[in-house]
Amino acid sequence: MAQEVFLSNVDLNEAVKIYFNKLLCIKGEKENVVTWESVGRVSYSPIFAKISSPFYNSSAMDGIATLSTKTYGATDRSHIELQEGIDYLVVDTGDPIPKEFDCVIMVEDLINLDKGKVSIYKSAAPFQNIRPIGEDIVKTQLIIPSNYMIRPVDIGSIIAGGVNDIDVYKRPVVGIIPTGTEMVEPGGELKVGDIIEFNSRVFSAQVSEWGGIPLRFDIVKDDYSLIKEAVKKAVQQCDIILINAGSSAGREDFTCKVIEELGEVCVHGIAIKPGKPVILGSIDGKPVVGIPGFPVSAYVVMDNICKKIVQAYIGINNEEYTTVEVVLTRRVMSTLKYLEFVRVKIGFVSGKYIATPIGRGAGTTMSLVRADGILEIPQNIEGYEVGTVVNVKLLRSKEEIKNTLVCIGSHDPIVDIASDLFHIKNGKYFLSSAHVGSMGGIMALIGSETHIAPIHLLNMENGSYNISYLKKYLPNKPMVLIKGVKRIQGIIVPKGNPLNIKCLQDIVIKGRRFVNRQRGSGTRLFLDYNLKKLHINPQNISGYEREEFTHIAVAAVVAAGDADCGLGIYSAAKLLGLDFIKLGDEDYDFAVPKEFIDMDMIREFIKVIKTDEFKGELDKLGGYDYAHIGEIIEL
Amino acid sequence: MAQEVFLSNVDLNEAVKIYFNKLLCIKGEKENVVTWESVGRVSYSPIFAKISSPFYNSSAMDGIATLSTKTYGATDRSHIELQEGIDYLVVDTGDPIPKEFDCVIMVEDLINLDKGKVSIYKSAAPFQNIRPIGEDIVKTQLIIPSNYMIRPVDIGSIIAGGVNDIDVYKRPVVGIIPTGTEMVEPGGELKVGDIIEFNSRVFSAQVSEWGGIPLRFDIVKDDYSLIKEAVKKAVQQCDIILINAGSSAGREDFTCKVIEELGEVCVHGIAIKPGKPVILGSIDGKPVVGIPGFPVSAYVVMDNICKKIVQAYIGINNEEYTTVEVVLTRRVMSTLKYLEFVRVKIGFVSGKYIATPIGRGAGTTMSLVRADGILEIPQNIEGYEVGTVVNVKLLRSKEEIKNTLVCIGSHDPIVDIASDLFHIKNGKYFLSSAHVGSMGGIMALIGSETHIAPIHLLNMENGSYNISYLKKYLPNKPMVLIKGVKRIQGIIVPKGNPLNIKCLQDIVIKGRRFVNRQRGSGTRLFLDYNLKKLHINPQNISGYEREEFTHIAVAAVVAAGDADCGLGIYSAAKLLGLDFIKLGDEDYDFAVPKEFIDMDMIREFIKVIKTDEFKGELDKLGGYDYAHIGEIIEL
Repeated sequence: MAQEVFLSNVDLNEAVKIYFNKLLCIKGEKENVVTWESVGRVSYSPIFAKISSPFYNSSAMDGIATLSTKTYGATDRSHIELQEGIDYLVVDTGDPIPKEFDCVIMVEDLINLDKGKVSIYKSAAPFQNIRPIGEDIVKTQLIIPSNYMIRPVDIGSIIAGGVNDIDVYKRPVVGIIPTGTEMVEPGGELKVGDIIEFNSRVFSAQVSEWGGIPLRFDIVKDDYSLIKEAVKKAVQQCDIILINAGSSAGREDFTCKVIEELGEVCVHGIAIKPGKPVILGSIDGKPVVGIPGFPVSAYVVMDNICKKIVQAYIGINNEEYTTVEVVLTRRVMSTLKYLEFVRVKIGFVSGKYIATPIGRGAGTTMSLVRADGILEIPQNIEGYEVGTVVNVKLLRSKEEIKNTLVCIGSHDPIVDIASDLFHIKNGKYFLSSAHVGSMGGIMALIGSETHIAPIHLLNMENGSYNISYLKKYLPNKPMVLIKGVKRIQGIIVPKGNPLNIKCLQDIVIKGRRFVNRQRGSGTRLFLDYNLKKLHINPQNISGYEREEFTHIAVAAVVAAGDADCGLGIYSAAKLLGLDFIKLGDEDYDFAVPKEFIDMDMIREFIKVIKTDEFKGELDKLGGYDYAHIGEIIEL
Repeated sequence: MAQEVFLSNVDLNEAVKIYFNKLLCIKGEKENVVTWESVGRVSYSPIFAKISSPFYNSSAMDGIATLSTKTYGATDRSHIELQEGIDYLVVDTGDPIPKEFDCVIMVEDLINLDKGKVSIYKSAAPFQNIRPIGEDIVKTQLIIPSNYMIRPVDIGSIIAGGVNDIDVYKRPVVGIIPTGTEMVEPGGELKVGDIIEFNSRVFSAQVSEWGGIPLRFDIVKDDYSLIKEAVKKAVQQCDIILINAGSSAGREDFTCKVIEELGEVCVHGIAIKPGKPVILGSIDGKPVVGIPGFPVSAYVVMDNICKKIVQAYIGINNEEYTTVEVVLTRRVMSTLKYLEFVRVKIGFVSGKYIATPIGRGAGTTMSLVRADGILEIPQNIEGYEVGTVVNVKLLRSKEEIKNTLVCIGSHDPIVDIASDLFHIKNGKYFLSSAHVGSMGGIMALIGSETHIAPIHLLNMENGSYNISYLKKYLPNKPMVLIKGVKRIQGIIVPKGNPLNIKCLQDIVIKGRRFVNRQRGSGTRLFLDYNLKKLHINPQNISGYEREEFTHIAVAAVVAAGDADCGLGIYSAAKLLGLDFIKLGDEDYDFAVPKEFIDMDMIREFIKVIKTDEFKGELDKLGGYDYAHIGEIIEL
């Protein structure tokens, strides 16, 4: 059995403070780069102009440069004639002003005579129409301060100020060592027990974004000496070392011991969730971090600790992120032991930002992909009730969130296609969908958490779809139903239908493993309705209590041989190359509160689902009848 | 004289629409890249999972995998014994579950017996403690939609879903041709009339940021055939061509004619300011843009037009930027002819965002460096009165603006040093300074536009400094004076003092060119006070009406030989290696409204100016007495 080693439970900020003190002053080194290759780099020292810009007086207009005293006395009634070469020089905008002249008269104020003469009818003041030395930048002026990240526009001023190379912070080399005997590189043959190694690739990309230079090492197996050798090599070549996986206190976790042997461990175990078993150590004065293996744990550690380390090397020592106030749509429980990082999806519905927590598991990479924000729940808080207003750290911009159509309810592959096409056709807009089943969609409508709810809810009494549910559960909210598709429901079985399943009765046979959909899903209702008609007791179905959340998930379980049959739609079976026994049709429609029907995003959505392009995709999927798609039914 | 060629005055959005229609569908090409090198690239098509993740059932805990039916009946009173190998297998978190077992009992719920036996006291449910197939990603699931910019976290999910290479938009090659006979490369000997070419470097950096590949060509002189040859070459090698300078309708502007000869001009002249003389054309179906030479004009064209073109090639067709509501501190006039882009500095003072326009000139690169935002004034608006609330497009984040200490008033090189040190010591904070002279600082205090106002205002009656002005102009606003430095004021003359100037009387001598400071500046007051004492009539000073805005600007003019003398502080003369005749001392202090004195930023500022490090910098500059620096005087 795994040994239980005691981990500390230090507060996150405390731990970082202790650690940074231990590492003494991480002050990056400098290097000199050519100015026009310095975008994105951070200035090591302030940049002062070496010359003025412009560095000579020049003309601000097209006209003539002359001496102001020669023009005194010129009026409408008493013109003054000037001779080219003697009294003036023709100048274009930007031309230098000769020392003998001190002003410019613009071409519109001149009367051309012949033989290089002009006539003026008003006097000119000294320095009029002249762009003076230093109008933009004055020699010795501060152009760019220290610890400043250079942007494209800054380059223009720096060059104009005569500075062609600047000192910037050298980028730290960050070694990344993936460990784990079960880890395999992507691209090879996969066998059960393998875990594809991808954390190191995410870390490499993050390090680059933060301004470091990632150096990824090959996967090291769970062997003490191998890991030790890899770490020693990394310490030689890198400024910062990140070791991934094996940082919990289990039987195959050597990271902590290796760091202790080669250097020292400052902190092992921080009160964060996920991410607790992180190790903060140092070898030869260089930071060495043991990052937990689970992807979300790794993300929390990278984002809250490693980023600070990398950026300290390049003169950036402030955390800058945008937050937004949101209303929670769900109660969120949290342990008092840890600071928890909860991923949330954020919608902007009826003028409010609303947030729904997603996937708490430390292994769900998709929760990071889909997250719009992170809710940090402090240690001393047990959780928040539904409806609480909290501050959330944004991962997408407010503008993007405001331009996102929220779609919560029953999943179907056509929603993904609609979402993709919707964004391609309307670059500005996004469609964000959450798969919680049809009743979940109804609940979201009741709670004003969504713009669209895809549903397929069967009225068990009369066999009709959707409308009766909307009338029953939303009697006081004017609703509209956008017609979607008729789709085929049935039994999904392995390719070749080895058990020769022909109807629902066949799934009751002993030993046959069924995989179900969750309560509240339209598919579950469809199943229960049909079981009732056939007088089949659900308890007799082995696996009736085993629940998956989408059609594809059901199909995947059958495809993997983990179940003999499940209920789902034709397109899911077809996608995974499985066989299918049709049981009936059902209506899959989109419920929309009437107040939203004139929103530009909704109108664009309806447009998209009515296009030939979209219908073509439905044909490819198979099993869809879109004869009435996009029609609007007012309830 | 320059010829006047008629430019159109098309509305910006109209022009872009016409142009994009002309260019037909700019649809980028695709290329295939390895997944872990795709960060920052935009997906060409949706990315679906090829495998589930996990792709086998695994243990969610450390414990034993067993068959649930073997555990039925186990209770506290009636334990069940299980035999390793026959009844169970020891598993760690993540280990695969053999087909013959269907649940996991965690180690904490086991009693170890000897000889590979364990005892359990509660039954296990099917699938308990198992991490099922597809818990994170289900085969065929949509991971990433089309036209989506890949982030580090996305890479993890894509690899986990078995997708090791993806189709992304190919980056367009953008040719950049700088033109102009007066243009010189940075780094060479400069002679009067030269203009250092830097726009192309800014464009290159912008193109890279937007996702294109810049290809910069050498500077081409103002010669029709040379420019034509360069453009032809660029059209062969690039997808998009940007030609800089010479896009107005003057005598040396060939860009338009070249594009007309090789292809066609779609729009010449757009109703924007700055940026009007832009050319939108095409050659061989490729976009060719003639960008005006003035840096700010170029910036407006790049940001509002070229960016859209580059991004259309990579599937991004939405403009996303953050705006903020601000109160204008100045009246802003605008012409009805153009959509104007006014750079503004934004401060967050007393809970409000306030904005002040800066540098309207099209040649002021520093206005782009210093700008916090852009105020777009539509064509049909003549301007805004002071106090109007307007929407401004942000160039810095709200967080950064909120963490910025606003400092408006009299300039001194010590403010730049304080600003630099302030940010180095407090990574989160910034100090933003505007140089409007001492009276400008007083006005800013009255208008609640600033946190700090550096002033050195001489009371002409009793020779005291600053306090009487604060009492006079801010009688109802509790103020505090943070003591700064005593500094030396005097006459700045060229090195060697060729005209042997010894006192103020010497500047009145005929032919001696003086350069003054602006009205309202403390230095001007000092001058006027001393002139009065000596009974010198300002009208007798040649150049008395010639105004510069900072000490350094005055010194620069003298250093360039453009004036024989000016009034300013010792450190400015020393910085530029000039000679100096002392006239007296003055108090340069920092006025702060009392309500701000407990702000964390103000306290940090005071800390910084009292450090030995800061005082050391003052010693290097010379001419400063900091005996009382940082002391707080309540008025």
